[in-house]
Amino acid sequence: MAERRVWEERFSEWFAEMLERAEIVDPRYPVKGLYVWLPYGFRIRSRVISILRSLLDESGHSEMLFPLLIPEDLFRKEAEHIRGFEGQVYWVTHGGREPLDVKLALRPTSETAIYPMFALWIKSHADLPLKVYQIVSVFRYETKMTKPLIRVREVTTFKEAHTAHATEEDAERQVREAVGIYRRFFDLLGIPYIISKRPRWDMFAGAVYSIAFDTLAPDGRTLQIGTIHNLGQNFSRVYDVKYEKVDGSHEHVYQTCYGISERVIAAVLMVHGDDVGFCLPPIIAPIQVVVVPVLFKGESESVDRAAREIFETLRSAGLRVHLDDRDLRPGNKYYYWERRGVPLRVEVGPSEVREGRVTLVRRDTGEKRSASLGELAPEVGRLLDEISENLRRRAADLFRSRVRDAGGIREAAELLAGGGIVRISWCGSEGCGTAVEEGTGGRLLGEALEERKRGACVNCGAETEKVAYLAKTY
Amino acid sequence: MAERRVWEERFSEWFAEMLERAEIVDPRYPVKGLYVWLPYGFRIRSRVISILRSLLDESGHSEMLFPLLIPEDLFRKEAEHIRGFEGQVYWVTHGGREPLDVKLALRPTSETAIYPMFALWIKSHADLPLKVYQIVSVFRYETKMTKPLIRVREVTTFKEAHTAHATEEDAERQVREAVGIYRRFFDLLGIPYIISKRPRWDMFAGAVYSIAFDTLAPDGRTLQIGTIHNLGQNFSRVYDVKYEKVDGSHEHVYQTCYGISERVIAAVLMVHGDDVGFCLPPIIAPIQVVVVPVLFKGESESVDRAAREIFETLRSAGLRVHLDDRDLRPGNKYYYWERRGVPLRVEVGPSEVREGRVTLVRRDTGEKRSASLGELAPEVGRLLDEISENLRRRAADLFRSRVRDAGGIREAAELLAGGGIVRISWCGSEGCGTAVEEGTGGRLLGEALEERKRGACVNCGAETEKVAYLAKTY
Repeated sequence: MAERRVWEERFSEWFAEMLERAEIVDPRYPVKGLYVWLPYGFRIRSRVISILRSLLDESGHSEMLFPLLIPEDLFRKEAEHIRGFEGQVYWVTHGGREPLDVKLALRPTSETAIYPMFALWIKSHADLPLKVYQIVSVFRYETKMTKPLIRVREVTTFKEAHTAHATEEDAERQVREAVGIYRRFFDLLGIPYIISKRPRWDMFAGAVYSIAFDTLAPDGRTLQIGTIHNLGQNFSRVYDVKYEKVDGSHEHVYQTCYGISERVIAAVLMVHGDDVGFCLPPIIAPIQVVVVPVLFKGESESVDRAAREIFETLRSAGLRVHLDDRDLRPGNKYYYWERRGVPLRVEVGPSEVREGRVTLVRRDTGEKRSASLGELAPEVGRLLDEISENLRRRAADLFRSRVRDAGGIREAAELLAGGGIVRISWCGSEGCGTAVEEGTGGRLLGEALEERKRGACVNCGAETEKVAYLAKTY
Repeated sequence: MAERRVWEERFSEWFAEMLERAEIVDPRYPVKGLYVWLPYGFRIRSRVISILRSLLDESGHSEMLFPLLIPEDLFRKEAEHIRGFEGQVYWVTHGGREPLDVKLALRPTSETAIYPMFALWIKSHADLPLKVYQIVSVFRYETKMTKPLIRVREVTTFKEAHTAHATEEDAERQVREAVGIYRRFFDLLGIPYIISKRPRWDMFAGAVYSIAFDTLAPDGRTLQIGTIHNLGQNFSRVYDVKYEKVDGSHEHVYQTCYGISERVIAAVLMVHGDDVGFCLPPIIAPIQVVVVPVLFKGESESVDRAAREIFETLRSAGLRVHLDDRDLRPGNKYYYWERRGVPLRVEVGPSEVREGRVTLVRRDTGEKRSASLGELAPEVGRLLDEISENLRRRAADLFRSRVRDAGGIREAAELLAGGGIVRISWCGSEGCGTAVEEGTGGRLLGEALEERKRGACVNCGAETEKVAYLAKTY
């Protein structure tokens, strides 16, 4: 494989440069924090969305579409929620030349648009559980430095699911289902992650508790790539979402919501990249295989014909294949497609045509191998599977090596200086959490959802089984 | 087929009621002109979008995504354009608690967001033609009465294509290509239409000329369902979109843009409807075939098993099929799915199970026929094709019968009173156009794009070959 020096040491520049070179997004739109999705990037985005959509549809979620604009009075009903969001809401105040009677918020997230509709739809226990989602743009007036796909003012790819349940237990079960869906989703993309329960002081505004998935950027900072919130009855009380039980009494529903944004696209691009550029998992690659004819004078016709046949063979096999017949030198084409992350290249030149063979070159390892034309489609299929598996394993190995244990605050601070995630024992108190954050300069991501280990809190020394994660974050 | 009395005579109520009953959209969102797409409606919408997307992709358009927010200075650059739109633009003036330095428009359409990017991307003749599109929400502060899918404040399904060309001829060729794409699109949906060149005083703000597709609502008013604009160099001069020619000189590009909104979904729902409800063309039906077991005591097990087998057979054949095994009376289920426009119903009861047959019931004609289980999938496929063809023909026949010729203004006015489209001879002058509109109370849709007929202008009597359409419009 290509080196990963620039990738790791100057990640920010690498990422910005590669997004531009691979034509994923154009950062030159004249408003800070807003970006244009270019055709190639758009196709990657569509594939990522369609995987997520399948997972949600299969598990009984219905896709819907709610309005972007939320009237101020509705938006302000849930007090915690508005406190959490009002600093970053864009407000529409005028229609044409007239001021509006009621200001309209550009949704920063859609609880306050959706739950008033839930109140109309949910009448009885037979209407529950209700599981819906939408994939939309949401808006955040970010005052921090913006960064394409990572910190943006128009989140163009926001999948938000919202559910309502008859009982607290069923809402808990839904949280577990959501964790399972997100696991499968990130696993399919080969993105490694940790899962933690966010500290109370860092929850979604209005939640009972929040669970988050974090991955690691090459520079050692974590990136939050998915969140799941148990909302309890906090919103259903405010928006009066009630149902009639079997016994005729009424109760407010229990709710959950969970979201994923285009940060997942940032993540899949970064975790599999190297100094040359991106390397796309075949499942989301708009082009899985590129065929490059290597033409020599006098023999270009037979090579050209062979390249076309190879293209047809692979296309008929259901692969996303592209024939690069531009009038450029092969080396330029190789580099062009490597940067764009096409997982596999087929080279065909005069000697190969004579022998009925081609050369296959893997983007992930750079490895070359020869394959016979008769066996091409199955061989390419096998190699794409291997590439998927290798990308996943490579990312997971690196990730694991960057999650390290610290026995005390000083050790944690030292480890954090080298990037990555630091695992500590934590009693769970806010006081100790703050002390750890102050003593290390890191952020407490929260308590590990699925790990327990007997130890002593790194701050107060109290015995605990809680494991917490600490990191510098995006 | 079911009757079409309510459908025709009280179309507005019919449409609103059926949208609600079939669960297409929910009109109860608490902001005027904004609607919620319900799961069933959303699936219809997705199918319509995916047909349009295929047609555009096949003809070399690249899908992209541009920001929703357009800074005021950029938006105001093209003088005609802003005059046409500023009365209906929503303005974002605040981010968080702070007023913004530059107001941001919610795009009412995206010329002013896209063309500044074109100026960055287009350098030489080799970059042309450039053909892109996006499918997004756009916003119009409508002051008129709003109506779901027809006149809305958030157009949630706006497909806008934008192209740039080296020559005027190539832009003209593009206009013809767009006309061809839209023809195919509406034909696939079985929506009849006329095509006209809008009068100069009724063009898209900033266009050289505008072409529009109009269909007829059941109440005899026309509905504009697609527009194509030749922009000439009007925008490229303002946004300085230039290219270098082969000879080294520079010229502004020639542009076109063309759009379709969720009105096409309104159109496909209304033109094929009847007093019972909608009847969906199989190509867009989320459920093409519904299987309804007709259970009798003592034999319910065998019927149930047969229904499941039928479901599996049809699903394996690649059809979108649904098994309705709810605990409801069959009659209720029939009505439920008829309203929702499922094109074909399979009924299976005890006697049918014994004979190895089922009953197939067409939504469009109400016709029943018996089919053997062994021949089920091909028979269903044939019937769905027949239904598609019948819907298209039925809509086209009715449409044709409602386009009538008038020799003078008074006759035109009389015909218009009965609804439909009136065809007249028109010299093309604005004076005569205004006189016709005033004398008839109708709107001059424009000059027929593909029809010519020798005659005398209904107002001034001048000899002309121009044919114009007149109608009451939505």
